[in-house]
Amino acid sequence: MATILIKHIRTLVQASHTPVGVVAGARMGELPVIDDAFLLIENERIAGFGPMSEAPERADTQIDASGRMVFPCWCDSHTHLVFAGSRETEFVDRIRGLSYEEIARRGGGILNSARRLNDTPEEALLEQALARLQEVQRFGTGAIEIKSGYGLSVEGELKMLRVIRELKKHTKMAVKATFLGAHALPPAYRENREGYLRLIEEEMLPKIADEGLADYLDVFCEKNFFSPQETERLILAGQRFGLKAKIHTNQFNCLGGIETSVRHGAISVDHLEVLTDVEIECLLSGNTMPTLLPGAPFFLNDHYPPARRMIEAGLPVALATDYNPGSSPSGKMAFVLTLACVKMRMTPEEAINAATINGAAAMELQHTHGSIEVGKAANFFITKPIPSIAYLPYAFGSDLIEQVFVGGVKC
Amino acid sequence: MATILIKHIRTLVQASHTPVGVVAGARMGELPVIDDAFLLIENERIAGFGPMSEAPERADTQIDASGRMVFPCWCDSHTHLVFAGSRETEFVDRIRGLSYEEIARRGGGILNSARRLNDTPEEALLEQALARLQEVQRFGTGAIEIKSGYGLSVEGELKMLRVIRELKKHTKMAVKATFLGAHALPPAYRENREGYLRLIEEEMLPKIADEGLADYLDVFCEKNFFSPQETERLILAGQRFGLKAKIHTNQFNCLGGIETSVRHGAISVDHLEVLTDVEIECLLSGNTMPTLLPGAPFFLNDHYPPARRMIEAGLPVALATDYNPGSSPSGKMAFVLTLACVKMRMTPEEAINAATINGAAAMELQHTHGSIEVGKAANFFITKPIPSIAYLPYAFGSDLIEQVFVGGVKC
Repeated sequence: MATILIKHIRTLVQASHTPVGVVAGARMGELPVIDDAFLLIENERIAGFGPMSEAPERADTQIDASGRMVFPCWCDSHTHLVFAGSRETEFVDRIRGLSYEEIARRGGGILNSARRLNDTPEEALLEQALARLQEVQRFGTGAIEIKSGYGLSVEGELKMLRVIRELKKHTKMAVKATFLGAHALPPAYRENREGYLRLIEEEMLPKIADEGLADYLDVFCEKNFFSPQETERLILAGQRFGLKAKIHTNQFNCLGGIETSVRHGAISVDHLEVLTDVEIECLLSGNTMPTLLPGAPFFLNDHYPPARRMIEAGLPVALATDYNPGSSPSGKMAFVLTLACVKMRMTPEEAINAATINGAAAMELQHTHGSIEVGKAANFFITKPIPSIAYLPYAFGSDLIEQVFVGGVKC
Repeated sequence: MATILIKHIRTLVQASHTPVGVVAGARMGELPVIDDAFLLIENERIAGFGPMSEAPERADTQIDASGRMVFPCWCDSHTHLVFAGSRETEFVDRIRGLSYEEIARRGGGILNSARRLNDTPEEALLEQALARLQEVQRFGTGAIEIKSGYGLSVEGELKMLRVIRELKKHTKMAVKATFLGAHALPPAYRENREGYLRLIEEEMLPKIADEGLADYLDVFCEKNFFSPQETERLILAGQRFGLKAKIHTNQFNCLGGIETSVRHGAISVDHLEVLTDVEIECLLSGNTMPTLLPGAPFFLNDHYPPARRMIEAGLPVALATDYNPGSSPSGKMAFVLTLACVKMRMTPEEAINAATINGAAAMELQHTHGSIEVGKAANFFITKPIPSIAYLPYAFGSDLIEQVFVGGVKC
């Protein structure tokens, strides 16, 4: 078996090793590390790690990481990485003073992406998405969730999910696919909500289940999108086809999406820019991962989720990019960490746990990804020489990742 | 003479070509470009450019830039790039709830950098600064201003300025040096402000002038730092030694620093996070470049300068990084453009003019740098394939610069 030995690692960031693979509350501030460490890879997995004094003498490949740190790869649990073309025109419209609603009225927003998606052949979509996947891999991401939701038609949604399936063949990253048919109501159904919900339940879901195209179901639970009642109905429909829920909720309004999601055992609730104390209590009562996406408020409105309040209440939080062409056109997890620290006052240790082990848990990958443990996937990155862990979110413009390994292979 | 021909440029961004080399008010929104263009370099200068149909047939080196854009290099007119060590510990202190004042009381802030600077040998300082200079060059910067101000002693200030002089020998970038002895009052003079002002006037300035170490003089005009009266006194002292002024002012308070600076013909006033209408009128009456540094409010307090109000009043603005270890630990101009667009509602065209030709003017380099014009320095960068100019600030996490040329040489 091929082995790789990373030697003289200045600091090996192990991240959480709790049995449940999730860190919550005060434990989020604890980040297990080993100074002057080694890391041993055997084929695609971590075979050993520890202080340099215990390093094996032999390995097929040896890498000297003196002065450098090693981190488990980021686990980005919320992206819309498959899309057709960028939307910087709307970005400029917003600068010129148009509201999100006006832009939507002019044919912008999600429906703009949907129109383009349906006009773009699967081949071209795959090519664009693959370039983005390779980019985020260079940024240190080793596991990723990707949503559909720009199809909003049977054919469009299936096309997106098939692109995600193809992506899996081109990468050693762990990829989870989420069906987000309920991302917006397509124009053809403007007067017929019931018709679109039925289309999801009766046409999309059976076909998706049939081809095994999705791991999760998502709904955009928000004013002018889908209500908590509709969200509940779709969560139940997804469950009938074996899809657990990951739900967009509380981006702009508290409507009850969290209560619904927790009650039905959703894997995660994502956004949470607005959040009541009652909703925090509700999250504490369940096992749903609260997932924060600070790239969107950075790009839109500076209204960040109350991460401190959540962590101090004892919750875990995960961090993800929300990579999408409208509200967060970036897949760079390191910058999400900077935003978490600068804008949400998470400590670097909390942000790193949120972006690794808790991100993994938001994709049910916490037992195979998200930390340095024997038997887990050999997904890690080696930094440039940096003086401390906190330097990573602090030096926000610098590219500090030197080498990325995914599945034991250097990218 | 060695020639380089860049061919088939999708869009050549020329930037302003006004005779005065500054763009103000509504003209900031005009960005001259040529589609399907060529750019010809002869030795260190731009020898020609225009539509591809007029390109010369021969050149020593030819580069096909199909699908790519070419921009004039960024002109970063405000940095503190020479410093000894990072200050992420204070960054974490702020996350944990300490105020800027408490951190200063514990020995943090500028005085922390000053202590370290004075303890660090010139060689080590040079090595660190050179690595940063090379990094910002890769980010597309071709002209830069660097300040002293972490010495706060005769020896320390001279050491910093000598490091800047050494840096010039290692780069083809245009480098301007600014003497910022009045960055903070050093502890030894806490009870003796007059003594420190005299030290600047009677010891530092003569020695700096003698060795020709600085182009400009700067003062941090702010509560708890230096008053407008002290600023005026130091501007006049600088003028006696041939140094024009570039002044830190209006970062937290409107004290009168702008009026003083404009009255004495300062080249620029920098920060302007707070700004009255009377101060805007004052700026309109003079030739001082208002320079905005959005990296600092991004990192500190989200209180951004009122760029829209300034441009709509008819002012020019320049953009710079403020690269320093305390309040803006990044030298990435592309991210400054993103902040200008997202947080200050500058259009991409305005931001690009502010970061090129107006930045050049804030260093008196507008006739040799900051735009694509025949005879100017061959400082430009070639992007990766991008769909539009607006894509550059929009795709905020991506690294979109493929090749950087400074002084006609690929970096």
